[in-house]
Amino acid sequence: MEVTIIVIGDELLIGQVTDTNSGMIACSLAPYGWTVRQVLTVSDNADDITSAINRAFQITPVVLTTGGLGPTKDDITKRVLCGYFGGELVRNDEVLANVERIFSEKGLPMNSLTASQANVPTSCRVIQNEVGTAPIMWFERNQGKNILVAMPGVPRETSAMFPSAVLPALLAHFRSNMAVEHRTLLCYGTSESDLATYLDSWESALPPHLHLAYLPKDGLIRLRLDCQHSSSQVAISEIGRAFDQLKTLTARWMVADVDISPEELLLNMLRERHLMIASAESCTGGNIAHRLTMIPGSSDCVLGAVVSYSNSVKTNLLGVDNELIDLYGAVSRQVAQQMAEGVCRATGADIGVSTSGIAGPGGGSPAKPVGTVCISVHMPGLPTTNAICHLSGNRGQIIERASTTAIMMAIEKLKTTI
Amino acid sequence: MEVTIIVIGDELLIGQVTDTNSGMIACSLAPYGWTVRQVLTVSDNADDITSAINRAFQITPVVLTTGGLGPTKDDITKRVLCGYFGGELVRNDEVLANVERIFSEKGLPMNSLTASQANVPTSCRVIQNEVGTAPIMWFERNQGKNILVAMPGVPRETSAMFPSAVLPALLAHFRSNMAVEHRTLLCYGTSESDLATYLDSWESALPPHLHLAYLPKDGLIRLRLDCQHSSSQVAISEIGRAFDQLKTLTARWMVADVDISPEELLLNMLRERHLMIASAESCTGGNIAHRLTMIPGSSDCVLGAVVSYSNSVKTNLLGVDNELIDLYGAVSRQVAQQMAEGVCRATGADIGVSTSGIAGPGGGSPAKPVGTVCISVHMPGLPTTNAICHLSGNRGQIIERASTTAIMMAIEKLKTTI
Repeated sequence: MEVTIIVIGDELLIGQVTDTNSGMIACSLAPYGWTVRQVLTVSDNADDITSAINRAFQITPVVLTTGGLGPTKDDITKRVLCGYFGGELVRNDEVLANVERIFSEKGLPMNSLTASQANVPTSCRVIQNEVGTAPIMWFERNQGKNILVAMPGVPRETSAMFPSAVLPALLAHFRSNMAVEHRTLLCYGTSESDLATYLDSWESALPPHLHLAYLPKDGLIRLRLDCQHSSSQVAISEIGRAFDQLKTLTARWMVADVDISPEELLLNMLRERHLMIASAESCTGGNIAHRLTMIPGSSDCVLGAVVSYSNSVKTNLLGVDNELIDLYGAVSRQVAQQMAEGVCRATGADIGVSTSGIAGPGGGSPAKPVGTVCISVHMPGLPTTNAICHLSGNRGQIIERASTTAIMMAIEKLKTTI
Repeated sequence: MEVTIIVIGDELLIGQVTDTNSGMIACSLAPYGWTVRQVLTVSDNADDITSAINRAFQITPVVLTTGGLGPTKDDITKRVLCGYFGGELVRNDEVLANVERIFSEKGLPMNSLTASQANVPTSCRVIQNEVGTAPIMWFERNQGKNILVAMPGVPRETSAMFPSAVLPALLAHFRSNMAVEHRTLLCYGTSESDLATYLDSWESALPPHLHLAYLPKDGLIRLRLDCQHSSSQVAISEIGRAFDQLKTLTARWMVADVDISPEELLLNMLRERHLMIASAESCTGGNIAHRLTMIPGSSDCVLGAVVSYSNSVKTNLLGVDNELIDLYGAVSRQVAQQMAEGVCRATGADIGVSTSGIAGPGGGSPAKPVGTVCISVHMPGLPTTNAICHLSGNRGQIIERASTTAIMMAIEKLKTTI
């Protein structure tokens, strides 16, 4: 099954906002064998929206729209859809109750503008939006062969409601009798092309109802195995067997057999072992601590961090020897090692990770070019693990890649010290 | 003038990559009064690309494509364009020299696949891609009334080449004789709608060649004034006069009269005064330090940070009183104040900013709901500035907004202590 996404909103065409909804929708659809054929991004203009809908239905039977459902006068999607599918805008009591609930939870007063969110076309069926005031609207055409679902543009709302309510309704409507199963594992320390070459013969021998997808990101590669079969029982047993084979084949690179970010994986391992982490960050400037603390509940396992951008902070707060800095430079294995050890001492952490490097664009030299990053992982009582990395990219990419590498090195350290 | 952007690539339709090129193009076009009418995102499929081009030329005279120009067999844009505009693929010596230069700079060997990058349709004019191997191709149709420019999908390449080479060529081709000037200022401490209401009568009285745009982001509002006039001299003098008026009108909220991020503004102010900053971060978890150190050259004014996620780090590294934490809680004006003062003491910073709050989703209480963030700014010898903020959004948004607020409070502090 193919869908077209219509992204509606002036703010997207002037470059103020970047669309992330269509990517989320595509990722949610993929395991069911549904694909996004095209994305059309149009302004809050009735003719452009109508023409995009006509075009979309020429291409695919299912059209999903995001955006243009706010209460202000520039948001016209609801009126345009009412004109397109017929009927009139009528107050919907369930939607009104939902809008009132959301406003009362926020302690905000309702006004006529927000109450107008509860007016919906009589030609649609409402899917209640549990996390926002704009109702999700389901329209049918051509005896249900054509479906258009209008969703809000706010990523938080659409990413909550699409997988939980819209997608199940679409699957049910098109009586997708196929059972779909998927399993994901995470590999580190190899490249997509090397992994694809390595797995080539195994992948080619997979039966047609099993499919392997490579999803590289941030130096890690997610491998997603999908299985579609008319029998749910067969799907589960077949994917289980193939996934076990895949885990055996990729054992030397596999860091997780679930779909998880490196920082979540690290926090889970720490939580399981009741260990606390701290970071000592020079070139990553706090990004490791930021990524760890973006995960809810991270305070269980994160003590904190010392961002030692200057040498004085390295010596005063982390106890790095001034002589070592003079002798080897701040970007050196020796200094990174003392930073990791120092942050454990200073905070009482069970595991300390450190980075010292040159993120650029300035500061590089022939001996230590931009992208040189020294990373250390220390656990009190054990020898410290050190690495010198040569990372590519611009300043932001080097900072991200150094952070990911440090997190992966901490994971590897924990794995080898069961 | 209106343009249509065609974004080409399977990776965009499966949600693996988010398109940022079209936003960059829209922002680059805006000051010249050019707008993006639609964005069409299609797969690496010849029929879909051809059909999108046909559709695009029905809508606008200018079509810009990004993506599908790599050397591998899934990248077919060049062949499709050659079929569409006629001619044949022929080796271009200048492009070959460029590809060879890039490979030799990276110390990589050329192969036949990469050399094929130098084959370009005879029907196009090449715009040399200075930062990548894929040539930028300029096609004309209908006696030059229709232009299609094909650019690479790599954001780094397109964001370097579009403003510097493609946009000037487009402006020259359509003999845009209009002089365009623009000025930007940054406001903080007000909302877009309040500011628009306040400026309404002034804005309405602007002559038609002057236009004001509101660009809110991250709690700040950028005001961009554009002037188009046939005389460059008139454009400069008129925008100068109007911009002076705008600065006077917005004086109470204006934090900068150039287009700059809050962190760049703060670093500039620090650099000018030879001051060093440090942050003490609880709920922002290192994000303030991360945002400051993402700016090249920030080591001039950033000493570092202490991420005091746990109370033990607050007391041991920042010298916060344990009794104060027991009495008022870690999320309190009193603790935030001691954190800001403590990080100055610990690092020797001239200015310290601190955050302590509840980013959620857990941890809230009726007295201190999720989004409560205490922020302090301390400069040794001066009274500490404290604020208790109630921020909305999810965990990530609360962390970003708390970071922006802390950076803005540091800017305000520096402004009032000239």
